[in-house]
Amino acid sequence: MTVELLPVEGIGEIAHGEDLGAVIWSACDASPVGLRDGDVLVVTQKIVSKAEGAMEQINPDDPLSHKPLVERESVRILRRRGDLIISETKHGFICANAGIDLSNVERGYAALLPDDSDRSANKIRERIRALSGRTVGVIISDTFGRPWRRGVTDVAIGCAGVAAVVDLKGTEDALGRELMVTEVCIADEIASAADLVCGKARGVPVAIVRGLEASWLRRASVRSEIIRDPAEDLFR
Amino acid sequence: MTVELLPVEGIGEIAHGEDLGAVIWSACDASPVGLRDGDVLVVTQKIVSKAEGAMEQINPDDPLSHKPLVERESVRILRRRGDLIISETKHGFICANAGIDLSNVERGYAALLPDDSDRSANKIRERIRALSGRTVGVIISDTFGRPWRRGVTDVAIGCAGVAAVVDLKGTEDALGRELMVTEVCIADEIASAADLVCGKARGVPVAIVRGLEASWLRRASVRSEIIRDPAEDLFR
Repeated sequence: MTVELLPVEGIGEIAHGEDLGAVIWSACDASPVGLRDGDVLVVTQKIVSKAEGAMEQINPDDPLSHKPLVERESVRILRRRGDLIISETKHGFICANAGIDLSNVERGYAALLPDDSDRSANKIRERIRALSGRTVGVIISDTFGRPWRRGVTDVAIGCAGVAAVVDLKGTEDALGRELMVTEVCIADEIASAADLVCGKARGVPVAIVRGLEASWLRRASVRSEIIRDPAEDLFR
Repeated sequence: MTVELLPVEGIGEIAHGEDLGAVIWSACDASPVGLRDGDVLVVTQKIVSKAEGAMEQINPDDPLSHKPLVERESVRILRRRGDLIISETKHGFICANAGIDLSNVERGYAALLPDDSDRSANKIRERIRALSGRTVGVIISDTFGRPWRRGVTDVAIGCAGVAAVVDLKGTEDALGRELMVTEVCIADEIASAADLVCGKARGVPVAIVRGLEASWLRRASVRSEIIRDPAEDLFR
């Protein structure tokens, strides 16, 4: 079993209203790697926000002009330090600056998170199926920091047709004991893997992850599987 | 640029005192995928702990008998709920049960984290270089939970010859603006990627990650690059 991480080249700037599923399918179709049943497409959040028009004008000369947007997109502030705000977004994510960012965005604009990234993933998946007949999984990824460990990593903020969390409960380990750790967030692992070939500076917004376990390709959602119930969360 | 995730098959049970570098090199050498300069080997913590004898006897009939070990391996308890302890380990990691676990371990034993996983990674790297002449990166991975998001993911607890955190500061994004998010924890992304082919239940303890950016292959350490200075951490 080999898994391949394949960057999808040739996706240009994305404008509001663009048919993202069609753009991604064309780029895959034109690429030597193609697109196969069972592939998982990892689509970085920025192009989804652009296609959906989840953009707001800001004053490009004021480095803090996106801060009111951060407050607006947040339902609860967890921590502040200087300009940095860690909050719970209206989508349920806990991240810096409500996921709003200015890199890879035209000057004078800030990109917000898509309204419902599971729905965005599903829309891309269905569009690709309609155009190509291929059945793929789709993950929308974004870049989050985390407590205790330096450096950001890519995680899944939406998914369709690929599991977010896989429950190994009842599975035995290699020595025949039942596994203690049972729930693996493979959608976050797939998003992180894809970042190794997309990269923040390379301007490649989509990667294909090919060769994943077939049993992971199922109906799923980040909202229902990954976002932790506040009642069971020890760090709110 | 394609990255491949290749499981290394044929590594059996590992005993205390075993020459892990030699075992991994033999398995790679015997495998059709081989081992190449620039490959990064991701080695799961359990076999490192076994080879180094980082194991303790516990009472297999008492599900809580490893708890005194958790206290001993911790320097500070952050949270408790029921049997679950989230603590800072003596190595500086913040994780559940001080990284101690019983899965994939012989009945009656608990595996502790290696004393110094950066050193363990370096030892494997140097041994492989001596035996094979190949220059590779090595990451020791373990499975951690995290706040706010359900499911565990694999992260790096040690590394050698491959960057832990890559600083993109000064890099421009695809539109020519300087990137806001500058430090990417590629070692954690690589560890997560490798888990997609190792898997907790599959008993494959090593994967090769092939095709990563050459500039990432440099002297590095998890301790100095990933562990966040408590003074700049908002969640202790």
